[in-house]
Amino acid sequence: MLVRDLGEFELIDRLAAVIATANERRIAQIGERGFRMLRAIGDDAAAWHAPSGTRVLTTDTMVERVHFDLRYTNWRDLGWKCLATNISDIAAMGCVPTWATVTLGLRPDLSVIGLEELYKGMMELTAECGGAIVGGDIVKSPVFFISVALEGAATSGSSNPLLLRDDATPGDLIAVTGHLGSSGGGLRLLLSGADAHADTAAAHLKRAHNRPMPRVQAGVSLARQGVRCAMDISDGLVDDLGKLCRASGVHAQIHTPSLPVDARLKAAFPADWLTLALGGGEDYELLFTAPPEVMHKAAQATDTPITVIGEILAGEPGVTVLDARNEPLDIASGGWDHFRDD
Amino acid sequence: MLVRDLGEFELIDRLAAVIATANERRIAQIGERGFRMLRAIGDDAAAWHAPSGTRVLTTDTMVERVHFDLRYTNWRDLGWKCLATNISDIAAMGCVPTWATVTLGLRPDLSVIGLEELYKGMMELTAECGGAIVGGDIVKSPVFFISVALEGAATSGSSNPLLLRDDATPGDLIAVTGHLGSSGGGLRLLLSGADAHADTAAAHLKRAHNRPMPRVQAGVSLARQGVRCAMDISDGLVDDLGKLCRASGVHAQIHTPSLPVDARLKAAFPADWLTLALGGGEDYELLFTAPPEVMHKAAQATDTPITVIGEILAGEPGVTVLDARNEPLDIASGGWDHFRDD
Repeated sequence: MLVRDLGEFELIDRLAAVIATANERRIAQIGERGFRMLRAIGDDAAAWHAPSGTRVLTTDTMVERVHFDLRYTNWRDLGWKCLATNISDIAAMGCVPTWATVTLGLRPDLSVIGLEELYKGMMELTAECGGAIVGGDIVKSPVFFISVALEGAATSGSSNPLLLRDDATPGDLIAVTGHLGSSGGGLRLLLSGADAHADTAAAHLKRAHNRPMPRVQAGVSLARQGVRCAMDISDGLVDDLGKLCRASGVHAQIHTPSLPVDARLKAAFPADWLTLALGGGEDYELLFTAPPEVMHKAAQATDTPITVIGEILAGEPGVTVLDARNEPLDIASGGWDHFRDD
Repeated sequence: MLVRDLGEFELIDRLAAVIATANERRIAQIGERGFRMLRAIGDDAAAWHAPSGTRVLTTDTMVERVHFDLRYTNWRDLGWKCLATNISDIAAMGCVPTWATVTLGLRPDLSVIGLEELYKGMMELTAECGGAIVGGDIVKSPVFFISVALEGAATSGSSNPLLLRDDATPGDLIAVTGHLGSSGGGLRLLLSGADAHADTAAAHLKRAHNRPMPRVQAGVSLARQGVRCAMDISDGLVDDLGKLCRASGVHAQIHTPSLPVDARLKAAFPADWLTLALGGGEDYELLFTAPPEVMHKAAQATDTPITVIGEILAGEPGVTVLDARNEPLDIASGGWDHFRDD
């Protein structure tokens, strides 16, 4: 069955039915924080009663053939990922996700079963990270796109619980969660043909690309431990660290031997793993800075792997990458400029 | 200058600069309700401190050649309208707009000056209706689209201040704000060529299509006066009233001689004005029901023109349209099904 075989409202009903049970559970969990849902899907807007507190709001969009391709991403992974990119932004503020709206721009020849799978993928992620879908919009479009807007809430009662990207200070250490470059490696494997790399190492890397796990618990823990400066890594380490430096007016120096890189990435890409770790993008790990004593406490307080990779210096905003001999690497801008690289 | 001539972040900087002054003022106005903006554009997410209360969240998307066409809509009007459709949903809940995110899917050959005009049009609307832009996303896309997510807040301290579409009760009167069909008439004129209809009446109808004015003050006033059931008219009166009836489990009966239709629409479309009033769509007027005594009070409490057009009955969900001789009209479904009518 294709989108064109159903009316807009029949389609909405089907998709709402797919998420109903799990979504109700998520809404109840968010309710434990003092939120009370009044109307979810079905009226002009979703409505809830909220306690006072700090809120965050983000939005992130994926366009077919620009950000994803159904030839190498299955529907359920796509649902996971389009929500994960948003939850990662909320995590990077030190907050937890609450309410999401999901907008679908649909080609009439898309599969209804596929769209149901898409919503199942989203609900699988909310089971891990929290958040509920409370509304959206479905429109006809010649290109398939998915746009999510997501609100979140701070969990701490502190007056300044947020993780911001403009708060890095000379003397801070720089750290990241998890591994770097795995998502970029996974994408390369996906583009080169799935069957050629069917071993478990390849499966791990592809999963890093298709099912990134937002660092919600780590973000909350960092904020609680006194970390004040963080962002998530979506465009690649060097590129995103550059943004953090510009926002904070500081310089960053990182050390390639310190970068946390999965052995499976090194094995699959013996020549390119460093390029992938520095610029691969879409890792959705947290990048953060803090004074050494705070960093030490923060690393101890969470189960999430945390690796110190460098330090913040005074000086011109920018990033210096030092190799094993402490020589600066000549790095091209790791940034993938979304319009210029046409 | 075209989108492809600028980097993503240069473009964001230019658009942020266009709205900066007016947006600051809007943020300060929303601050008077107890909200305190902590971070707007520039971090992983917008962040604010909010008082406790009822919140609403909606999202609405416009796709080029599906919902708009730059051949007959100028950029500033497009900015106005893509935000107006969202503010109208907030108004239809009896709330006022607070924070918006704006997502742009951009063809690389779009005009940067045009996009600046788009944001100016959005700010012109916020000067009338409130609301501020606190974030967004800019992505490359083969088709131009604009997706807005908008949060709002209830202004009343009452425990049940919302206008919901499932609260119509037999015995209620049905009313609408403003005029019906003008937007649909304006669209027909736009499609038939602007120069052929350059008189002031035509200009009024085109403006009704391109610059609909969300009924924020009316919505707040209705909620304060005890109205409980409302929605906005986006798909056409008969279609939207049908949705309200299905949500409420009631039947509606409306009278064509009672419909508020602008004399300029009747003059421009002597044969079709009734069809346009019943099914034209995109009027963004409020459609609401209330017991006669509440309706009377509500009509007196606002400067917005309010017209009673029928009554809610017990019976099968649906809409009966009676003509001047009290004969039921044989109406085709006024609904424009967005996928089937390809």
